[in-house]
Amino acid sequence: MTKWVYRFGGGVSDGGKGDKNLLGGKGANLAEMASIGLPVPPGFTITTEMCTAFYDNGEQFPEELTSEVQSGLGHIEKITGKTFGASQQPLLVSVRSGARASMPGMMDTVLNLGLNDDTVEALARESGDERFAWDSYRRFIQMYSDVVLGLDHYVFEDALEIAKEDKGVALDTEMTADDWRALVAIFKAKVEEELGRPFPQDPQDQLWGGIRAVFASWQTERAKVYRRLNDIPASWGTAVNVQAMVFGNMGDTSATGVAFTRDPSTGNNAYYGEFLINAQGEDVVAGIRTPQYLTREAREAVKASKPSMEEAMPEVYAELAATFEKLEAHYADMQDIEFTVEQGKLWLLQTRNGKRTAKAALKIAVDMVADGLISEEEAVRRVEPQALDQLLHPTLDPDAKRDVLTVGLPASPGAASGVIAFTADEAERRAQLGDDVLLVRVETSPEDIHGMHAARGILTARGGMTSHAAVVARGMGRPCVSGAGALSIDRDSQTLTVAGRSFKEGDRLTIDGGTGEVMAGEVATVQPELSGDFAALMEWADKVRRMAVRTNAETPADCRAAREFGAEGIGLCRTEHMFFDADRITSVRQMILSDDEGGRREALAKLLPEQRSDFAEIFRIMAGLPVTIRLLDPPLHEFMPQRESDYDDVARASGTSVDRLKRRAAELHEFNPMLGHRGVRLGVTYPEIYEMQARAIFEAALDVQAESEAPLPEIMVPLVMGAPELLQIRTLIDRVAEQVFTERGEKIAYLVGTMIELPRAALRAGDIAEHADFFSFGTNDLTQTTLGISRDDAARFLGEYVDKGLLPKDPFVSLDETGVGELVEMAVERGRATRPDIKLGICGEHGGDPASVHFCEKAGLAYVSCSPYRVPIARLAAAQAALARQ
Amino acid sequence: MTKWVYRFGGGVSDGGKGDKNLLGGKGANLAEMASIGLPVPPGFTITTEMCTAFYDNGEQFPEELTSEVQSGLGHIEKITGKTFGASQQPLLVSVRSGARASMPGMMDTVLNLGLNDDTVEALARESGDERFAWDSYRRFIQMYSDVVLGLDHYVFEDALEIAKEDKGVALDTEMTADDWRALVAIFKAKVEEELGRPFPQDPQDQLWGGIRAVFASWQTERAKVYRRLNDIPASWGTAVNVQAMVFGNMGDTSATGVAFTRDPSTGNNAYYGEFLINAQGEDVVAGIRTPQYLTREAREAVKASKPSMEEAMPEVYAELAATFEKLEAHYADMQDIEFTVEQGKLWLLQTRNGKRTAKAALKIAVDMVADGLISEEEAVRRVEPQALDQLLHPTLDPDAKRDVLTVGLPASPGAASGVIAFTADEAERRAQLGDDVLLVRVETSPEDIHGMHAARGILTARGGMTSHAAVVARGMGRPCVSGAGALSIDRDSQTLTVAGRSFKEGDRLTIDGGTGEVMAGEVATVQPELSGDFAALMEWADKVRRMAVRTNAETPADCRAAREFGAEGIGLCRTEHMFFDADRITSVRQMILSDDEGGRREALAKLLPEQRSDFAEIFRIMAGLPVTIRLLDPPLHEFMPQRESDYDDVARASGTSVDRLKRRAAELHEFNPMLGHRGVRLGVTYPEIYEMQARAIFEAALDVQAESEAPLPEIMVPLVMGAPELLQIRTLIDRVAEQVFTERGEKIAYLVGTMIELPRAALRAGDIAEHADFFSFGTNDLTQTTLGISRDDAARFLGEYVDKGLLPKDPFVSLDETGVGELVEMAVERGRATRPDIKLGICGEHGGDPASVHFCEKAGLAYVSCSPYRVPIARLAAAQAALARQ
Repeated sequence: MTKWVYRFGGGVSDGGKGDKNLLGGKGANLAEMASIGLPVPPGFTITTEMCTAFYDNGEQFPEELTSEVQSGLGHIEKITGKTFGASQQPLLVSVRSGARASMPGMMDTVLNLGLNDDTVEALARESGDERFAWDSYRRFIQMYSDVVLGLDHYVFEDALEIAKEDKGVALDTEMTADDWRALVAIFKAKVEEELGRPFPQDPQDQLWGGIRAVFASWQTERAKVYRRLNDIPASWGTAVNVQAMVFGNMGDTSATGVAFTRDPSTGNNAYYGEFLINAQGEDVVAGIRTPQYLTREAREAVKASKPSMEEAMPEVYAELAATFEKLEAHYADMQDIEFTVEQGKLWLLQTRNGKRTAKAALKIAVDMVADGLISEEEAVRRVEPQALDQLLHPTLDPDAKRDVLTVGLPASPGAASGVIAFTADEAERRAQLGDDVLLVRVETSPEDIHGMHAARGILTARGGMTSHAAVVARGMGRPCVSGAGALSIDRDSQTLTVAGRSFKEGDRLTIDGGTGEVMAGEVATVQPELSGDFAALMEWADKVRRMAVRTNAETPADCRAAREFGAEGIGLCRTEHMFFDADRITSVRQMILSDDEGGRREALAKLLPEQRSDFAEIFRIMAGLPVTIRLLDPPLHEFMPQRESDYDDVARASGTSVDRLKRRAAELHEFNPMLGHRGVRLGVTYPEIYEMQARAIFEAALDVQAESEAPLPEIMVPLVMGAPELLQIRTLIDRVAEQVFTERGEKIAYLVGTMIELPRAALRAGDIAEHADFFSFGTNDLTQTTLGISRDDAARFLGEYVDKGLLPKDPFVSLDETGVGELVEMAVERGRATRPDIKLGICGEHGGDPASVHFCEKAGLAYVSCSPYRVPIARLAAAQAALARQ
Repeated sequence: MTKWVYRFGGGVSDGGKGDKNLLGGKGANLAEMASIGLPVPPGFTITTEMCTAFYDNGEQFPEELTSEVQSGLGHIEKITGKTFGASQQPLLVSVRSGARASMPGMMDTVLNLGLNDDTVEALARESGDERFAWDSYRRFIQMYSDVVLGLDHYVFEDALEIAKEDKGVALDTEMTADDWRALVAIFKAKVEEELGRPFPQDPQDQLWGGIRAVFASWQTERAKVYRRLNDIPASWGTAVNVQAMVFGNMGDTSATGVAFTRDPSTGNNAYYGEFLINAQGEDVVAGIRTPQYLTREAREAVKASKPSMEEAMPEVYAELAATFEKLEAHYADMQDIEFTVEQGKLWLLQTRNGKRTAKAALKIAVDMVADGLISEEEAVRRVEPQALDQLLHPTLDPDAKRDVLTVGLPASPGAASGVIAFTADEAERRAQLGDDVLLVRVETSPEDIHGMHAARGILTARGGMTSHAAVVARGMGRPCVSGAGALSIDRDSQTLTVAGRSFKEGDRLTIDGGTGEVMAGEVATVQPELSGDFAALMEWADKVRRMAVRTNAETPADCRAAREFGAEGIGLCRTEHMFFDADRITSVRQMILSDDEGGRREALAKLLPEQRSDFAEIFRIMAGLPVTIRLLDPPLHEFMPQRESDYDDVARASGTSVDRLKRRAAELHEFNPMLGHRGVRLGVTYPEIYEMQARAIFEAALDVQAESEAPLPEIMVPLVMGAPELLQIRTLIDRVAEQVFTERGEKIAYLVGTMIELPRAALRAGDIAEHADFFSFGTNDLTQTTLGISRDDAARFLGEYVDKGLLPKDPFVSLDETGVGELVEMAVERGRATRPDIKLGICGEHGGDPASVHFCEKAGLAYVSCSPYRVPIARLAAAQAALARQ
């Protein structure tokens, strides 16, 4: 028979850390902590399999669960000596969710379960603290009514505000036992008024309601959105943890806190956390009271006045610190811990591998290798490649003028500029229109996830370093400034006021998540400086990766940046970008608008020396490395004159009339330029263009070869749909090469290949390979054509598609493996069948996406190529992909 | 050892009609005619394999060919008693090309070969006709210099004109023997002047030059173009026929002519042809002299004054008529024959299956079945489906006002209106811009092929019913009026003058190829009436075909037309076309421009009854047949208001402002609408649209079921890229069906399926089939995405692509089998693996293209669907495809 309930605590551990899939992360780690002798309140876990069975079974529990839960309760009663529902020594429990992957704030929790009009008296009596007992009861009613009974929590908050006003007090702590008792009566009346039935008094009813609510919360909209954003399958399910209550709010020898064994922001090897005296766990996370630091050092660093835990509770702190050491050694990773001190006794409520910034991940991994805790390969595995993005992108220029409005908490590093959006929906809307958005909220909640995802950065007026906004922003790699208390947000007038200045929706702000600064307008940025940790990790990654990493670049600055980031050549040099230069655009336009070859050749003659020097500069920077140059690709209309004066310039240069140019421009108009006269089709129609480009490449290569290391030019023909096109252009290129080599009396090695970026090219790869030394998968265009989606136009529906699961992911971010991927695999197979040594790579933007890099490794490509700033990400991802295949 | 030379004539036939691949059509049939005892001048054929060997071998002949050709010459010498190159009884030969498929005018011919300064004297002496001998010699120099030596033929024509002017005569017939002798001297001097060497006097040199020229002409540009247009592989090669000359220009008992055993235009079982007394073959075809009719009946029908052959040469005519009967019975097909009468003796120079109009093909095939000459299945095989197009398209409305300018020869049936283009290049250019073009030429030549192909119709001032223009136009199915002598075309001023009126390039004319009328402006057209022959052939076709044929139609008129043409249901009913109706477009615009669901629902409520009645009408017409209705597909911007007043209308209807509407319209703009927010993406974003359409379908179906035979609605979801989209929409449709069935208390059977029109859909067909009752291949869009070509923008390069062989055919006309076709086959296989009984069809325009229909048969589709006028074409093509697989 399936075992649904696993016990932990009091020397018993039915499970352990290996049982995460079955018990969820929280349940598995509670069992593990109990088994290594740490103080964990006893409890039991109902398995994730129960969640699946619950949904498969029309949201009903199987009969045998009842007895298993009763025996689980018996286990807790035995250890604690308390009895669930008894008038004396009543057992109170918490009911919490715990899925396989951490889903912060997404699942619901009920504390103090078991309290009723009867047991509250016992609790008052036995704790000797009537106020505590009634406060706990009113919290329980409030939480249970919200989470289990589905009542609006404002009902209770309003009642509490009224009670405080009536009494003329501001803080909860000023409320007495009698005040809470009176409020409980009001709360119970509210429940009966809203629901037409009284608040459940039977602890068994309470318990089953709680269990059901946890399972039910697995399928709420916000949970679904979170899962989709984080690639968590619905089939995993959640576990339910029922555990004896311990109280951090039983007076000044009680406390509750959260801690990281190292600094999750910087990775420094120092305890990092916050606690509140006389509080329950939710008080810390919710950001309602500003918490105190754990260590004296941390407190002193910010000159906070309230004592640290190290100072306020030295003995318990020492026990806690010892626990940190034990846990980190045991898990060989930085831990994120929840604890409660009940009347001087420490209890651990949770441990898990802590989320961290990229910088911290890097430092922790490298430090742990130095300490012999983990291997180099393990360090490579540990760092999320995507997270490096935070480190690699520009930060605010220290010399740029900053119009600082206020300073909040540096909750997630990185700088972001954007226009203000006051709601998640607005943030999403503006982002879809292409704006950089800053989501500005009093505080964030799980309902805001989609807006946080759409935003470049997050700014909140309330909440600490472990508030919802901070935790989620760090997880997403979004810069975040939290708790910027000087901000005043007026919902009605949609205005943000700070330092006497007002900002409306759509106004631009900048935040620095590394310092907490909030600035008006946009602030210039600079390149990040990379630490030695970064270099060390990259070196280890390079040792294990199989695929080369190149870059997509065409400006000297980008080429240099990419080499510094470790690029091993250029995978895509887009020649059309060189044509937009102000000096050249008139010649380019003259070329396009000529209606005969003579006119085009005249313009091309002017462009030849320019292209030659472009290529020569790139070859110098990439000396000795392969440089893949794509021949002219985009629809010519992109170069079309925009203004009247542009037409004048071209008319003058080409000795023709503006009218005639305009007629020609109108002729060149296309309905779907993406599918129009571009790529190799230009080379077929106007071979003189490719002739000029090929000549420029060969002449430049010979020039550079004469002065330094020879480059390896790889000439790439775009948008090929079959072998005959490539053969025609290849013949042209080879002919030009022969001409140049004869003229110059010297030669250089070169390759000719093609992009595979149309479905037909993938299908015909076998024929195409006859004439191609290499294939480079242009997965941007291949995605557009395979899925029939124009990237420029997709914003209006693509977000909804991903949210609704109609597409697994944004296919422009992460390669659509089951569609586009199959075409790539097919082309690899067919290309190799014709030419076993064909060079295979990818130059779509997917080359910098870790999941796509894994795909490329599986597909057996020789290299990936991506934008300069993503080169380190690709190096690390390629290393992880290679490790995953070992 | 390979045998390169095959003899025929004089009782010897090394080959026969089965050897077309080896000997070419002309050579095989010459051998065949000789073997059945018909009078064929003796000769030999050099095989097509020699052509291939010649090109494989760097355009060199193998040594052994020399002796084989010599022995071939020996064969002719033996039969004729003449000697090649001898000063007495010199043998003269013709050298002609002859490929496997007829390529009219594409290959070059040399007559009178063997003449030189010496043999011409012998010819004069022995024929007793000095004038004839010198005329032949000058013709030979002229033709040989043009074809073999590559001299411009104007050189000789100018010299001839000068000679005639000097002498003050207008016609060649007025030239004397001495005149021709003098001209020969001038011609020879011209050759030496142009080439720096004398005209070759050695007949062996002449012969080898001629043979080489024929083989060389296989690879001229115009031959390549013709092959591409007609799908003839270059590997077939041409044969060379060397044959004893016979002369139709040896006085008034000599003649030359071409004939068809039945009328190639109407199919009437009456000899049809033309001849010229005292002329060589080229004179008939070139259209320089206007020829005489063969039969008295034909002459009398047009009241021509010159006697028919039947009247002028009754004995030879009788022999010829007997030959016609013999040949037609022997080949069981209508024959196209070339003959020469030399001093009263009939010689046959060629026979082949005659090209014919669709009408003639139909009548001949049906007549031959009636006569027991061929089987019904053979009749089905005989008629080119594509040719039916001529019969099915509208002809000129007999009641329309016609501004008749002149009447020429009715050279190829059908009516065409178009703007005048005076050159083939201009015709092509204008056609690419989307104009209907009429190519207007003095006469056409093989260099004009591309312009004839691009034109809707062809009009020439000179040339008979068998002129180049006429033959090629009939082959291409283009209407043609030839020999309209009243036309005067001034090249310099680019003006056509006729009946005292002038027309410029770009002015519009209409021609009626059935009557020869040439009209100013555009003339209204009417539906064709179909003959009993058509019905008979269609009935035979329907007996053998496996695939059903449906139509793409949405207007009642089209639906009715399609049923009359035999459509067995609707394969594609495009609902968006119904939205363009003037009454509805405002509601449609209101729907699009709403920024909320409420506004959209309001507009949809107005559209529901309209759509319901649209569908009801179609269901009534298609009672008992399947009707596939595609839910809204196109990018919404197609419906966008165009004029200011449109905005006003919508603003009034929806109670909003024009400004707001314009803002929304700007938001909806797309860069690549083909790849934009369309198809099922609309249904996902605005489910209320598909809800309305599904409701309209079910309500209409129930209404029609109540009054007559129930329709079978097949609801088709467009642009699906994966299973989840289809599942979502299918769920919506099934829910609406349930609602409507409950409301009405009755049910109707229906199917839900999807278009496969994106490469990803083909790849994911296995998953998609889980939710699809049917797949319909939308090969228009599938071609656009697989090849990355926007059909709207392709004109600028696609023609060149097909001409240069970069694509095998226009992929929008004939399915790209090796690209798109592979995706179709993949989807068929994967769809069937999931759902073995899935219904499979095609609704792209390829459904009416015979080659594509063959592909569909091979792929195992259940039906093809095409535009109403192509339904009979598809029926016939499907029958032929089924026969081809037997």
